[in-house]
Amino acid sequence: MKLPGQEDSEVYSAHENGSTGELDSGPGSGPSPDGSSDTEESKDPLLFIQLNELLGWPQALEWRETGRWVLFEEKLEMGGGRWSAPHVPTLALPSLQKLRSLLMEGLVLLDCPAQSLLELVEQVTRVESLSPELRGQLQSLLLQRPQHLIQTTSTRPCWRSAHPREASRGEEALLKEQRQNSLRQKLPPGAEAGAVLAGELGFLAQPLGAFVRLRDPVVLGPITEVPLPSRFFCLLLGPPMLGRSYHEMGRAMAVLLSDPQFQWSVRQASNLDALLAALDAFLEEVTVLPPGRWDPTARIPPPKCLPSQHKRLPLQMQEVKGSSARRYGSPAEDRHSHAPQAPSPELQRMGRLFGGLVQDVRRKALWYPSDFLDALHPQCFSAVLYIYLATITNAITFGGLLGEATDGAQGVLESFLGTAVAGAAFCLMAGQPLTILSSTGPVLVFERLLFSFSRDYSLDYLPFRLWVGIWVATFCLVLVATEASVLVRYFTRFTEEGFCALISLIFIYDAVGKMLSLTRAYPIQRPGSPAYGCFCQYPDPGGNESQWTRTKPKDRDDILSTDLGLVNASLLPPPECVRLGGRPRGPGCHTVPDIAFFSLLLFLTSFLFAMAFKHVKTSRFFPSVVRKVLSDFSSVLAILLGCGLDAFLGLATPKLTVPREFKPTLPGRDWLVSPFGTNPWWLSVAAALPALLLSILIFMDQQITAVILNRAEYRLRKGAGFHLDLFCVALLMLLTSVLGLPWEQRLTGLVVFILTGISIFLAPILKFIPMPVLYGIFLYMGVAAISSIQFTKRVQLLLMPAKHQPDLLLLRHVPLSRVHLFTAIQLACLGLLWIVKSTPAAIIFPIMLLGLVGVRKALEWVFSPQELLWLDELMPEKERSTPEKGLEPEYSFSGSDSEDSELMYQPKAPEINISVN
Amino acid sequence: MKLPGQEDSEVYSAHENGSTGELDSGPGSGPSPDGSSDTEESKDPLLFIQLNELLGWPQALEWRETGRWVLFEEKLEMGGGRWSAPHVPTLALPSLQKLRSLLMEGLVLLDCPAQSLLELVEQVTRVESLSPELRGQLQSLLLQRPQHLIQTTSTRPCWRSAHPREASRGEEALLKEQRQNSLRQKLPPGAEAGAVLAGELGFLAQPLGAFVRLRDPVVLGPITEVPLPSRFFCLLLGPPMLGRSYHEMGRAMAVLLSDPQFQWSVRQASNLDALLAALDAFLEEVTVLPPGRWDPTARIPPPKCLPSQHKRLPLQMQEVKGSSARRYGSPAEDRHSHAPQAPSPELQRMGRLFGGLVQDVRRKALWYPSDFLDALHPQCFSAVLYIYLATITNAITFGGLLGEATDGAQGVLESFLGTAVAGAAFCLMAGQPLTILSSTGPVLVFERLLFSFSRDYSLDYLPFRLWVGIWVATFCLVLVATEASVLVRYFTRFTEEGFCALISLIFIYDAVGKMLSLTRAYPIQRPGSPAYGCFCQYPDPGGNESQWTRTKPKDRDDILSTDLGLVNASLLPPPECVRLGGRPRGPGCHTVPDIAFFSLLLFLTSFLFAMAFKHVKTSRFFPSVVRKVLSDFSSVLAILLGCGLDAFLGLATPKLTVPREFKPTLPGRDWLVSPFGTNPWWLSVAAALPALLLSILIFMDQQITAVILNRAEYRLRKGAGFHLDLFCVALLMLLTSVLGLPWEQRLTGLVVFILTGISIFLAPILKFIPMPVLYGIFLYMGVAAISSIQFTKRVQLLLMPAKHQPDLLLLRHVPLSRVHLFTAIQLACLGLLWIVKSTPAAIIFPIMLLGLVGVRKALEWVFSPQELLWLDELMPEKERSTPEKGLEPEYSFSGSDSEDSELMYQPKAPEINISVN
Repeated sequence: MKLPGQEDSEVYSAHENGSTGELDSGPGSGPSPDGSSDTEESKDPLLFIQLNELLGWPQALEWRETGRWVLFEEKLEMGGGRWSAPHVPTLALPSLQKLRSLLMEGLVLLDCPAQSLLELVEQVTRVESLSPELRGQLQSLLLQRPQHLIQTTSTRPCWRSAHPREASRGEEALLKEQRQNSLRQKLPPGAEAGAVLAGELGFLAQPLGAFVRLRDPVVLGPITEVPLPSRFFCLLLGPPMLGRSYHEMGRAMAVLLSDPQFQWSVRQASNLDALLAALDAFLEEVTVLPPGRWDPTARIPPPKCLPSQHKRLPLQMQEVKGSSARRYGSPAEDRHSHAPQAPSPELQRMGRLFGGLVQDVRRKALWYPSDFLDALHPQCFSAVLYIYLATITNAITFGGLLGEATDGAQGVLESFLGTAVAGAAFCLMAGQPLTILSSTGPVLVFERLLFSFSRDYSLDYLPFRLWVGIWVATFCLVLVATEASVLVRYFTRFTEEGFCALISLIFIYDAVGKMLSLTRAYPIQRPGSPAYGCFCQYPDPGGNESQWTRTKPKDRDDILSTDLGLVNASLLPPPECVRLGGRPRGPGCHTVPDIAFFSLLLFLTSFLFAMAFKHVKTSRFFPSVVRKVLSDFSSVLAILLGCGLDAFLGLATPKLTVPREFKPTLPGRDWLVSPFGTNPWWLSVAAALPALLLSILIFMDQQITAVILNRAEYRLRKGAGFHLDLFCVALLMLLTSVLGLPWEQRLTGLVVFILTGISIFLAPILKFIPMPVLYGIFLYMGVAAISSIQFTKRVQLLLMPAKHQPDLLLLRHVPLSRVHLFTAIQLACLGLLWIVKSTPAAIIFPIMLLGLVGVRKALEWVFSPQELLWLDELMPEKERSTPEKGLEPEYSFSGSDSEDSELMYQPKAPEINISVN
Repeated sequence: MKLPGQEDSEVYSAHENGSTGELDSGPGSGPSPDGSSDTEESKDPLLFIQLNELLGWPQALEWRETGRWVLFEEKLEMGGGRWSAPHVPTLALPSLQKLRSLLMEGLVLLDCPAQSLLELVEQVTRVESLSPELRGQLQSLLLQRPQHLIQTTSTRPCWRSAHPREASRGEEALLKEQRQNSLRQKLPPGAEAGAVLAGELGFLAQPLGAFVRLRDPVVLGPITEVPLPSRFFCLLLGPPMLGRSYHEMGRAMAVLLSDPQFQWSVRQASNLDALLAALDAFLEEVTVLPPGRWDPTARIPPPKCLPSQHKRLPLQMQEVKGSSARRYGSPAEDRHSHAPQAPSPELQRMGRLFGGLVQDVRRKALWYPSDFLDALHPQCFSAVLYIYLATITNAITFGGLLGEATDGAQGVLESFLGTAVAGAAFCLMAGQPLTILSSTGPVLVFERLLFSFSRDYSLDYLPFRLWVGIWVATFCLVLVATEASVLVRYFTRFTEEGFCALISLIFIYDAVGKMLSLTRAYPIQRPGSPAYGCFCQYPDPGGNESQWTRTKPKDRDDILSTDLGLVNASLLPPPECVRLGGRPRGPGCHTVPDIAFFSLLLFLTSFLFAMAFKHVKTSRFFPSVVRKVLSDFSSVLAILLGCGLDAFLGLATPKLTVPREFKPTLPGRDWLVSPFGTNPWWLSVAAALPALLLSILIFMDQQITAVILNRAEYRLRKGAGFHLDLFCVALLMLLTSVLGLPWEQRLTGLVVFILTGISIFLAPILKFIPMPVLYGIFLYMGVAAISSIQFTKRVQLLLMPAKHQPDLLLLRHVPLSRVHLFTAIQLACLGLLWIVKSTPAAIIFPIMLLGLVGVRKALEWVFSPQELLWLDELMPEKERSTPEKGLEPEYSFSGSDSEDSELMYQPKAPEINISVN
């Protein structure tokens, strides 16, 4: 499941540039998906750097802010009058070298005690080379107010308002402008500023360079666009030169200051040499692009993830330690930076009965109050709506399917009730209420099988099912007691993907299948097909004929009942005919034209629009808020659109049928299922066999979901509760079996389930939803889920010529033929599962699913540990032993190739948003 | 029009890396869209550089090719056993510095006379520091055959075959392998190789560096993957060091050699100092990325266009000249690098009657034979098919529309014939047979107006039209005589876009409108609507009743004619009923169910699939050939798909109706139109007025198309023939008016029009094409055309928040509010044109179109020349005067900001592929 809040990182923007903190993350924590994380070196405050350039020499000297940096560079578009998008700064090497020599010859004040701009300017201009007159000129120039392009949230052309003629506005206006600056609100508290002033000044005979670190950061009046206290001040002035030297040197200084490593060094530096050493250390690490193959003016958009500063910091240390060279290129490092190497505490075996359960209860009890308080976050509202919709859609559709499959033993009403009761109970009791039972597909398949089995052998279904439920609960309790959940460590990506792909395929297959069955219910009328003709025949030839004939012209337009010289017949449409006591006769009476194609249109419309709305988030159009709403509510909007279209045309498409009364769907049965019914007593024992299969299914279902949810990239803090959750499942299994409710324990927030419960009474509204629309949404969910797994990407590789394949890290390390082999094996497993599911042997399907783990184990004979590490992940035992025996040879051979960038490989959990309820 | 061959540059691939020549282009020629162009400095042969690395020290020393360079770098993926995609090489600065010092201390042999690898190795190892024993070891090592990963066109895992144990294969096998190498065939003749050998060698006491330029390039046996003569040889060996130094130094050397500027310098260098100077010059120009904001292991895909080497080469010269600083940032330079500054020779006024025409004939006569011979190129086949399809689709649809609009005065047959005759004649006579009259929309609109005008005043249409045609021909001849075509210089992008947007909108509007009119012809049947019921009534109550009743059970299934106790009636479908002599009666008889929605589905299917097939070209799937075919034949495939779907379901959708006889559509008229008919004589004079309007329309239509076609980015070599083409148009106008054929002079190849002519007899095939499919294709053409113009991009900007807007160069130089104002004015003009087109005043519409030029002129009061330069282009007079008066102030103020990269701004002609016939 993917909650609306857990989105991928968006395109960086001017404000995001400012708002994100230092992206540097601790060792092994890997890239941070949303760009903010707890940092190791975050002691250094965030630095906002601004470049003010001296323009207009010689006639109209003025300072103008032409660039700013937080994480990336934003450049003033002189012509366009706006800030560029943030981009990776690029420098020319000579400007760095020129800057270095200017600093060497210039003034460097570290821990300068100046308390105001005036003091600072006095200190900076106290240079021998300047005559008193020049010094005065320079000082007044430095005190002059620079022109900022203040970008407010609206897009009005601010450029003009910053025109020189308005420079006479007082300090008040300036402060107001500074306060209005939306950038300021985005900078975290404690942020400091760095001001770089650069330009060509004709009256200077020689260059004037000054670098100041203020002892106490001071707000330097109007110099910076935002009223932050400045820590660094850098002045780079000199006589006019060719080639924008001072501008480029100013940029170089700003880029240096925006580098966390350089900034850290400069904050510690005690003399010029330390400053120069920091610059040299920077130069040692820069990346160089050759001029012939790279246009230096191209702007590189910010990368999705920043390089780990950790790789940079201990460079010397790494070389000293020597062995850390292994670090580079070790996929275990890169891959498993997302998941702890050792099994997480939740999965450590306690070694005593119910030990894991007790541990889970203890650990989760601490979080219990916060689980409720956390719901106050406004984002939860959108999550509730989203999950509610998915829940209700699932309950309705699968309730309907189940009703059909079990001859009404369970229907939509039971589905709603089961979801609501079980979900709410789970929310109150479970360890991790976000855990989702993705069982919709497989458990439903199993339930269908169980029903057809009991029908084949003339068993009383609900009592039989009750016993199955009792046994499942027992088995689950045994699994809890024996701490079986620690086995989830054997569920590698291979198993997860197999399971997830299967569920997705069931969704897609069911959606398309139900849609096609509609075209059988509402056949298309081909020319020559016997679909024409239906008229209304009056039942009694001799009786009321004359009377009815008389009423015709008054009641209806006479085209409807033209007297064609027929006896006792009219052309009233069938419903009208029945209403007036007639009988529709003819081959066309049961045909409703246009429904089949219109349903298909609705199906496609809701599918395509749900897809399109989902993708609005990454488009460039509309403000972020609008995009977020459209994307978060994509399914709701698609359903509303479908309903609107349907209502507009007013065709008799099949609609949701929701019971209007609160009673069991099967007439004559009580809410409590009788324990035996008409079944023989021994059936309650025999039910243990299907229960065993179902237990496997439920165990896998529940635990795979939990494993996926607890992946490191979601950065959950409260920990999982594998044992506790399975315990709850066992209890709920019992409850739903007794009440004859579907075994659909899916859960999110209590609210969702309370809403779901209330929905039982929403029949008058829900009946407006055409079924094709819901099928379209299901297709969308299936397609979205199957697109999110790595398996799908590898299947796509099968269709791509090698030279057009994306630069996946996987492909850098595993030969393509091996990748294809792995994919083919997965495809074969999936095919086998599908076949088993579709044959009479389907009841053993849960065991097949468990067999995936065995297949994965067998793959260790086919693939090397290195290959499995890239294609899947290692199983527990291996994981412990490989560092010694498996990985070193290849990786020492390929050298400490440092190209295994984290940037390009971001493992992502399968998105099982199809199964949020 | 965009021919299939004129595609955008594709993703670079391994082979493309090899196949493209030097991308450097001469001054002002700008970026080359497809990556190859005539070059100025192409005297230097292309260099293929290969890095062989010494691996496996100390146990299993072997050379392995780990990198190769032509334009970009390809890296051997050690684990994946394949070549990476080409990418921009990135270097660490220290490796360049280490390389520099190694070269300083090492051996530099310029113009080495070695004739074989053996001689070369002997020369290189003749170093004092080596003992004779070491020298021998080193020599045998250097002569050892390296392992290449030869990539054949298939994707078989070649890595294994390059395994050391097979190293004993003879030279023959090696040569065979080298010959099989697909890379070799992609390298142009005359290409040379450069070999860089780098690695750690434990028995060396100190580093060993050698750089050799061979006097005569020699094939160095197995050292290079491809058997090219090597010009450069570089050896970088030394004792083991930390941090992959030699590998990185080897890469640095290879990147240096792949730089055209460095290569040029090294080819000229006469001593070590010149070599080092070249390296320093390279360093001066490198782009530096800061370590904190850029992961050095990220691979940058090759840019679409390479930076102009011209900006680099004369750097010193530019500084000397001084004034050339203006060069940077001048949009005139960047924008107009695509079109010559001075009017092209075709557009220079001769100053005498028919001077331009004579000039055109003279110039084009030279190319006349080649115009036919060039058709032998295989690409022409796909072009012919594509254009034929578009032509025939246009002719059918607009023929049909015209037939409806003119009460059959002209129909599909005339449309075919007109296209074929006029097109073929144009191909034989015209200056530039590729010129496309994009007139489908506007001329059709005009023709409809003319018809309704003549009907309103009870005129004889065809004779009236004949006189209009005669006058148009006369006016066009006057325009030719007065060389009016030179006025096309006033058609700026503003006018082109207005015209193109209008045509596209007409297409879209017509497609959607025709589709919706189908739903009126085949109404949707709502519940309660009087559409049920239709039966077959026998006309004669007393006559053949008994006979017919008797045949019923035998002829048809009895459900079709159930005896319902009715008199003389059955439920046979209407066509059957009519066939058997009955009469269908009832409100449902004229209703064909399901057609409306099915047509809509066909319409959407063909539109979406045409779009999807078109986009296959840029997808990663399938081999390039498949993608190219799918993309080139997108419309054909979409039509076939639509027809297939239609045939599969067998519904009675409306189909194309093509006449089966070769005769004028209007019954009773002759092929030759009588000059007066029933019209008064003075009408032949009055026809001059509409003819004037039509002449304006045709002039604009023809010339705008020619201007677009002759844009520099299509790199046509034969030049335009504006006057000659207009002359041909005039003659054809006369011909088609006399014959009563539509005025649709669209043309491409003679073949297309011969095929079009033949299509008159293809009625039995064409009748399978459902109309909704054609409408879908039209929608696609309209949407594709309107998406291709810059205007659309600017309209999209209106919907984007400023911070998400793409980094268009336009936006760097013009304030957003001004861009929006310009777009709004264009939108208003378009809206006005549309309104005029839709009102009774529509006949003055051509003048409005001409008014666009006036509006554009008036815009000079609203926008500054700089703004217009970026938003549009300058009109002729301005273009001459601006360098002196208009542009300098702003651009000297903003400094010689070199960020106006060509990379990001590639003006593209509107894609008027909707109008290829």
